[in-house]
Amino acid sequence: MTARLLDGQAIAAAIRQSVLPDVAAFATAVGRPPGLGIVLVGEDPASEIYVRNKVRAGTESGLWVDLQRLPSSATLEDLLVVVERLNRSDPHDGILVQSPLPAAMGRGAAQRVFDAIDPEKDVDGFHPVSVGRLVQGRAQLAPCTPSGVIEMLQRSDIPMSGARAVIVGRSEIVGKPMAMLLLQRDATVTVCHSKTRDLPALCATADILVAAIGRAGFVTPDFVRPGATVVDVGINRVTDGAIARRLFAPGSPRLADFERRGSVVVGDVHPDVVEVAGALTPVPGGVGPLTIAMLLKNTVAAAQGRQRPA
Amino acid sequence: MTARLLDGQAIAAAIRQSVLPDVAAFATAVGRPPGLGIVLVGEDPASEIYVRNKVRAGTESGLWVDLQRLPSSATLEDLLVVVERLNRSDPHDGILVQSPLPAAMGRGAAQRVFDAIDPEKDVDGFHPVSVGRLVQGRAQLAPCTPSGVIEMLQRSDIPMSGARAVIVGRSEIVGKPMAMLLLQRDATVTVCHSKTRDLPALCATADILVAAIGRAGFVTPDFVRPGATVVDVGINRVTDGAIARRLFAPGSPRLADFERRGSVVVGDVHPDVVEVAGALTPVPGGVGPLTIAMLLKNTVAAAQGRQRPA
Repeated sequence: MTARLLDGQAIAAAIRQSVLPDVAAFATAVGRPPGLGIVLVGEDPASEIYVRNKVRAGTESGLWVDLQRLPSSATLEDLLVVVERLNRSDPHDGILVQSPLPAAMGRGAAQRVFDAIDPEKDVDGFHPVSVGRLVQGRAQLAPCTPSGVIEMLQRSDIPMSGARAVIVGRSEIVGKPMAMLLLQRDATVTVCHSKTRDLPALCATADILVAAIGRAGFVTPDFVRPGATVVDVGINRVTDGAIARRLFAPGSPRLADFERRGSVVVGDVHPDVVEVAGALTPVPGGVGPLTIAMLLKNTVAAAQGRQRPA
Repeated sequence: MTARLLDGQAIAAAIRQSVLPDVAAFATAVGRPPGLGIVLVGEDPASEIYVRNKVRAGTESGLWVDLQRLPSSATLEDLLVVVERLNRSDPHDGILVQSPLPAAMGRGAAQRVFDAIDPEKDVDGFHPVSVGRLVQGRAQLAPCTPSGVIEMLQRSDIPMSGARAVIVGRSEIVGKPMAMLLLQRDATVTVCHSKTRDLPALCATADILVAAIGRAGFVTPDFVRPGATVVDVGINRVTDGAIARRLFAPGSPRLADFERRGSVVVGDVHPDVVEVAGALTPVPGGVGPLTIAMLLKNTVAAAQGRQRPA
């Protein structure tokens, strides 16, 4: 048995297609396109790639995307000044500050920045008001990665109501909001983490298993009930040959890829899980594209929300 | 085997004792005691009892408790005017609007009121900012009932880290915040509800089982792993003799109580669970007194927070 691969690229394309009429209608009604301000501090290589993809996807969908860059020497106060300016700017409907911030900004800097973003423009969904409204089942702007997972499950006809969902990882960005969103769709939800006992056996009770821990290939076939849906949220760059060889079979195309480039991107789910799961999101090409599609959807929702009378 | 009964009265008394020095220190430093404004709309008999207990407990602990009553004919707008006045009032450190509100105020009225309370004074913890901060592990004011349960487990030396916790019920007031608080204490947390399949078997995997569904005697012994800790959050008034006789053995003191008064207060946990569980919170006298103790604690925390420079 080999898992059905859930094609994140195709689903993301469908979501992006679905926002086009809303973008056009907004532009006609308001006289400008929905606007997204992205703030990038420093030159973290992974962040550069993520931001480039966000700018391109937004622009292709007809949004106005305004990338504001700050040097890696910028202080937290510099960054908060930029956020405040975007809060007050009318054409910026959404604001996204790319994580991670430079370590020099200090612990807790990211949350201080998220706290400063106008909740109406909080397209990442990390402001406490956004988090609270999500828990209360009335989110206007839900975090992009978990809401992308929900869209993917829905569009792939994977039933959530009554399903046993197990989430490995309890981050603010994925694990906790994922739990809330699955609960709202009537799944029975368990959240696991590093202190969980008998983790493989517990995971193997899941109809829907979400891996969001940031450890390459951590979820092995013994974690997976045959036929279960496995959602792989991890994006880990492996540069250690020993790890690559543990993950990929000799002679496999992914191992050849690693040998050629010296690195490979791997999810939290071990490649062998494809032989046990019923459905699986690949990495790359699974959850990743959905995160960007949901960012565009959130930007349009924020733009529409700001035009509505309070 | 008979469960150890977790004595909510005694633990609540200890918590209330522990706030006395803080109350005194605040009064000395600020020149007035911490103040709690309670708003009661209408004359719901259960609400009258709850509010009377809150006023008494607060006053006994040295707080200034200001009970503001509105007639049951009051509109939502009337109520919002009172909340706004308490928001602006300096000596009111905490604000509590007793639920339920009159049905005539319309669906969603309670959340509109909670949204209007200054988050700094939100001693019930129902404002979206409070909920968001709770999820983010930086709550200043957490909902009283679930945080009371945490205090009870802690003070009863029931280990939470690594424990399997199963919560039956997903309300905003208990189920969801209970999940977040247990997760922060490193439990592995599952939230169940009406759509959960195989509920008894799933509950029977729990080291800590929390029942918060509002159905008298719903959790029967087959839900409980021998030796597990069972927390009963339900407060249900039973007036039907058939139900009372299903719950209580012939000749038992509780059934005699029912026959004499025509009603009896029962939790969500069936009385027979006492023979399976390792520890159990009784109803009445378990979680209930803790809710009030945590309200006092939250009021003092709110008062202290408002004096701190921002």
